[in-house]
Amino acid sequence: MKITDLHAQNDFKPFGPSKLLVHESEFMKVINFNFKAGQGLPVHHHDLEGELVICILEGDGHFLSADAKIPAKAGDTLVCPIATPHGVSATSDMRVLVTIAPPI
Amino acid sequence: MKITDLHAQNDFKPFGPSKLLVHESEFMKVINFNFKAGQGLPVHHHDLEGELVICILEGDGHFLSADAKIPAKAGDTLVCPIATPHGVSATSDMRVLVTIAPPI
Repeated sequence: MKITDLHAQNDFKPFGPSKLLVHESEFMKVINFNFKAGQGLPVHHHDLEGELVICILEGDGHFLSADAKIPAKAGDTLVCPIATPHGVSATSDMRVLVTIAPPI
Repeated sequence: MKITDLHAQNDFKPFGPSKLLVHESEFMKVINFNFKAGQGLPVHHHDLEGELVICILEGDGHFLSADAKIPAKAGDTLVCPIATPHGVSATSDMRVLVTIAPPI
């Protein structure tokens, strides 16, 4: 049983997303990204089987797809295949939790 | 690409946890539980391979193990094998996101 205090263990960085690897195993990968306003992850994809969950923990921004920009706020959750183009951008400082299964 | 607004799509119930199945696939199961203060999930386990993540989205409570009660607040994340006894209890109204991979 592993407990991570995301607020205490990850902060924000001025020049790019701050990434905390919360967990990695044969079953899943769990990553916390903190984005300062204006930061994000550009639309990308991986030609692999599996799915990912992006949950907005704090702040506001957008989920990005190949051709859309969908407003996202704390409590909003995106699920999609890893092979589907996806990304996020932060309007305010924003914390997200990403879970990928199986892990990549 | 499936987006769920947990605040709009799940509420709180007076007599027990309010459960929203966010996603279920061959890769994972994602569930949002909302607990009113005093509600929770008692310690339990499943004799199966796999792991679960419990992320506190809002509110305060405790993560429960077989023999411990660990304070939990928004941004705290627990990862453990499905076979390890685990539970949660809410001190205030509390929203959590549970991800299980592979799904059970």
